[in-house]
Amino acid sequence: MRSRAEAAPSLLYLPELATLAAECALEGDEAHYLARVVRARAGEQVHATDGLGLRVTFEVIESRPTVRLRRLSQEQVPRTRSLVLGVGAPEGERADWLIEKLAELGASEFIPVECERADWKAWRADRMERLATAGLRQSLGAHRLRLSEPVAFSDWLSGLSPELARFEAAPGGAAVAGVAAPATGACCVLVGPSSGFSPGERKALSDIGFRSIALAASRLRTETAAIAAAAWWASGDPRLG
Amino acid sequence: MRSRAEAAPSLLYLPELATLAAECALEGDEAHYLARVVRARAGEQVHATDGLGLRVTFEVIESRPTVRLRRLSQEQVPRTRSLVLGVGAPEGERADWLIEKLAELGASEFIPVECERADWKAWRADRMERLATAGLRQSLGAHRLRLSEPVAFSDWLSGLSPELARFEAAPGGAAVAGVAAPATGACCVLVGPSSGFSPGERKALSDIGFRSIALAASRLRTETAAIAAAAWWASGDPRLG
Repeated sequence: MRSRAEAAPSLLYLPELATLAAECALEGDEAHYLARVVRARAGEQVHATDGLGLRVTFEVIESRPTVRLRRLSQEQVPRTRSLVLGVGAPEGERADWLIEKLAELGASEFIPVECERADWKAWRADRMERLATAGLRQSLGAHRLRLSEPVAFSDWLSGLSPELARFEAAPGGAAVAGVAAPATGACCVLVGPSSGFSPGERKALSDIGFRSIALAASRLRTETAAIAAAAWWASGDPRLG
Repeated sequence: MRSRAEAAPSLLYLPELATLAAECALEGDEAHYLARVVRARAGEQVHATDGLGLRVTFEVIESRPTVRLRRLSQEQVPRTRSLVLGVGAPEGERADWLIEKLAELGASEFIPVECERADWKAWRADRMERLATAGLRQSLGAHRLRLSEPVAFSDWLSGLSPELARFEAAPGGAAVAGVAAPATGACCVLVGPSSGFSPGERKALSDIGFRSIALAASRLRTETAAIAAAAWWASGDPRLG
């Protein structure tokens, strides 16, 4: 199997990162992760982010009995593009991996949208936050998926910033392969719930001007459409060159 | 909530569809699905596929105590493009939803590829077949994801048809937004296992000529990359217009 030198790089999520001293002790989940999961040793380098763009490289001073770190360098990673996903409730527990995958793909914000035909009664904020953190660690990104509490469809629609490029994942829309994902700026994709939008919701959407994009010829579940939309957006990242 | 007339259309998966008489009785899972889950009533129409391109429209003669159907029409849906995914083992149980999602997105074949650093010991063929069927039903497609038993990396590579367009999902590759997914014909995407390819496997891949495509700027898990690749391929379906 692989040597330690080849091991996949790891990333700590430290919301309080900006306020840490140049030498600091770590506690809680991230200390456990570093000492027990990654098994970092004294002298090794580890990376951390606050999920808001700050990225710090630390040297491990010691990992047992206490994890102690020394800051080597830091940078603020600018966010030049963002993706807000407003998503109706999928069936059952299907939001679980949706959140993790959206965080991995680098989406910026997730809004559970309460629709006439589907509510987000299964929304468990603490669990979802943990999954967003898991996705961030995997992605090695500097920006963590932000989660909102469930919001009513009409409230969400009326609160949308006018600068957002607006798309709706819809089977009858324009083929997404021919629609460039915005390379910069904020973009929003709406995905309907498993039971679909009501006629009233449909009308509100066409009144406000969402551009319909078709992701696949097959009928997709809510969570699949949301992932496919995030993959489409991620594929338009100018860092891919 | 929705009326029955608005309910999402349903699809039966009947591998033996081509051999059924014009009037027939249904048993087993699909009969249960129709009578208890969809709760189809006499006089309603239902659709079925054999997963190999045959699609039949039936009228329900009765649903209790026995499900009995009458064939109204049938068509053979041609397969003009296909996607073969060769995928290294992801972590834990993560193949479960991967299979369902690939089936939903219309991928043609899934090959669990045994690599030096990761084997598919968690491959459970019967469970995966059920998930492929769930994805087919959801997709409303006429072609079901075909599943292979795990195959050794070198065997898979040496058995690849020369006509296949070959891609590898790799962070350093060409931005996928600039690479058109083949509109027709067979295309193959390889996704490495969670632990990556060995140097020997890397060399074999470059020798045989895989085109590297980068799906996202963030580091993706195996199953996320496979889904993103399938979404890329699905977005190039000419039926999307």
